[in-house]
Formats: sequence, structure tokens, C-alpha cells
Amino acid sequence: MDFLPDSVNKLIEELSKLPGIGQKSAQRLAFHVLKNSDKNNNEFGEAVLKIKEGVFLCEICFALAQREICKICSDPGRDASILCVLENTMDMLAIEKTGEFRGLYHVLHGKISPLDGIGPEDIKMAEMFKRLTEPGSPIKEVILAMNPDLEGETTSLFIKKHLENLLPLRVTRIARGVPSGGSLEYSDDMTLIRALQGRQSI
Amino acid sequence: MDFLPDSVNKLIEELSKLPGIGQKSAQRLAFHVLKNSDKNNNEFGEAVLKIKEGVFLCEICFALAQREICKICSDPGRDASILCVLENTMDMLAIEKTGEFRGLYHVLHGKISPLDGIGPEDIKMAEMFKRLTEPGSPIKEVILAMNPDLEGETTSLFIKKHLENLLPLRVTRIARGVPSGGSLEYSDDMTLIRALQGRQSI
Repeated sequence: MDFLPDSVNKLIEELSKLPGIGQKSAQRLAFHVLKNSDKNNNEFGEAVLKIKEGVFLCEICFALAQREICKICSDPGRDASILCVLENTMDMLAIEKTGEFRGLYHVLHGKISPLDGIGPEDIKMAEMFKRLTEPGSPIKEVILAMNPDLEGETTSLFIKKHLENLLPLRVTRIARGVPSGGSLEYSDDMTLIRALQGRQSI
Repeated sequence: MDFLPDSVNKLIEELSKLPGIGQKSAQRLAFHVLKNSDKNNNEFGEAVLKIKEGVFLCEICFALAQREICKICSDPGRDASILCVLENTMDMLAIEKTGEFRGLYHVLHGKISPLDGIGPEDIKMAEMFKRLTEPGSPIKEVILAMNPDLEGETTSLFIKKHLENLLPLRVTRIARGVPSGGSLEYSDDMTLIRALQGRQSI
């Protein structure tokens, strides 16, 4: 809006570039920042400017990490026989937060998506196969935890197919079904079909 | 999360301080910033650091402004006989965007809220009365455009009461009713009551 100070308009513009932040939200946030203390804003601004400082990709699992080898890969308490394959570090964050999984991870940094021109060579797929086929690899099970969309499925099937002739590994996929707290009434057909197909004895 | 780089955790922390940004959104945004080009991040970071540079409160209407007197107050094309009273500059932005209103504004920077200990002396109320009672003031109508909540109502009534003995002004309030595109079915009781009370001949 042309009557606002340039600095406010500039921050609105920058904030509205962020994913999921529309014009209105950007305005609200910019006004919040404007009211903030200088100390707070300095910390915020510096955090943006320094985001890439000291950021590594773990040389083993390719997660974003604090050092060359991430905390999880260098933790001797983790179960090295199970490998959970993920699309990105955020998914790893989500699983790690549950505290349920004690194995190791491999972050692909993407998924196979022919429509977007992304093939297995564009993600950390070769690195994963290398890791699995390394002499003395302790990995006994690979859990595929891609997001349950078309590209995620494609990626899972690709891995499954390549592994079945290659190694005597157990390859599993995380369960798909009705989410906890969800309702059957509002679930889509595919979710219900997966839930029925994946039914288990109780 | 303790396995993430410090710089990423720091930005997640800073982003999650923003209103309406939870932990998950902050993570998503921080990862987005991490993938951004350095150029983009420099612009974003600098915009945060410089947000308060060259920001004025207009000396007439108290809107956030680029100079001592805002563009609207210094525009001779605006109708100086109508004054729209608002809680904050964002509301002014919303009304200005419609292009419907050609009068002037007064921004109170808050509303009377006894529960929060905010009285008329804590907002730009005296400044508004001064503006209205100034010799030669061209203002003929005051439109009260506070948000339709308890504090907004209180503020409107306070202004109405003070003005009715003071000046022969027309004091109006923006209409309250069912919003465009809204549905009666999902409207709350108070909205429907206001809509009925405010019915107009067609």
C-alpha cells in the first residue's frame, strides 16, 4: 500500500514470499515486527542472515546436521540394523519427535517425480543403495516412509524393485490408514481403501 | 530438535515467536529460508533489521507513515468533512484497499479495554477530540469503524457519548451484519441479531 513506510512495505513483500504466508498474514506479521523491541528484531534478522552458517548435510544419512556426521548417525545407542528412508529432514524431525524409532535414517532430499523431471539420479538414491550394499553393512530392514502421494508411491516402488533382486533385505512401508483422531466419515476413498487393505488382527 | 544445526533451531525459535506461527509452521518456514538463495535471505534479513527506519506516525491521523504527515492527510483530493476512526493502521489498510472511502482517518492505536487496564488516555483519543474541536475543523461526520467486539463497542459508545454534548456532528457506525459470501446458517446469534436490527429498505 503506497501510504505505508517503505521499510514496512519491504518487509511485507519479503514475508509474503514465504510459503503459506499470504498478503494479509504478511501485513499482520510485519506490523508485529514493527512493534517488537529492537533487541528481538536484531535476533530475528540475524537469525535469517546466518541461517546457512554451520549447516552440514550429514555424510552418512544426508540429514541437515550440526557437523559432518549428524548426532543420530554418531549415536552408538541407535539400532544400525533398521534404516528409515525419508523425503526430507522435516519428516525425520516428525518421526524423531515421537521417540518411537531407534534405528537410523536416510534422507533422499526429494522423491521421484517424472512430471517435474526429477529422477532417481536427482536425489540421494545412489547414496542409499551404496550404503545398503557396502560390505559389512549392518542393515537388515529398510522402512520406506515416503509421503503417501503419487510421487511417494513411485519412489517406494522404485526402491522396492531395485532392492528385491539385490539384497536379502526386509523392505517395509509405513502403514497407511485412518489417522488417529480422524473420522471415517470425513476420510477420502483412498484412505479408507488403504485402511481396509491394511487391516490387522487385534 | 537437538540434532538440527544451531542456526536452523535459532531461526525456528525466532519464527515461532511471530503471532499465528506455531512450531510446525516455523520449521517449514526455516527450512524454506535455508533453501533460499543468499541474495533472498540477505534482503529478508535486512528488511527485518531495518523495519523501524524511516517510520513515522502521521502527526494528524497517527497512521504509520513515510513522512511526518501521511500521504492521505496531505492529499487535497480527500474529503476532509468525513473522519473514519479506526483501531489501527491495518484496519486503515483494509478500508483503503476497497477504494470506497475518500475521507480522512484517525487511528486510535488501540481500544478501551478495562480488563486490560487500557483507558481512553492510553490511546489517541484526546488527539481525536482535539482534532474535532479545533476552530475551523471541516469535519461534519465521524464514522466509527472499531472492530465489532466488546472493546470496540465500548470505545464506540465512549466516543458517541462524549461527542453528543460537545459538537453538532453526525456520528455513525459501520454496519454490522452477515458478511458478503457468508451464510445465515453458520452465522452466530449476535451477527444475525445485528443483521435484523440493521435491516434496510431495498
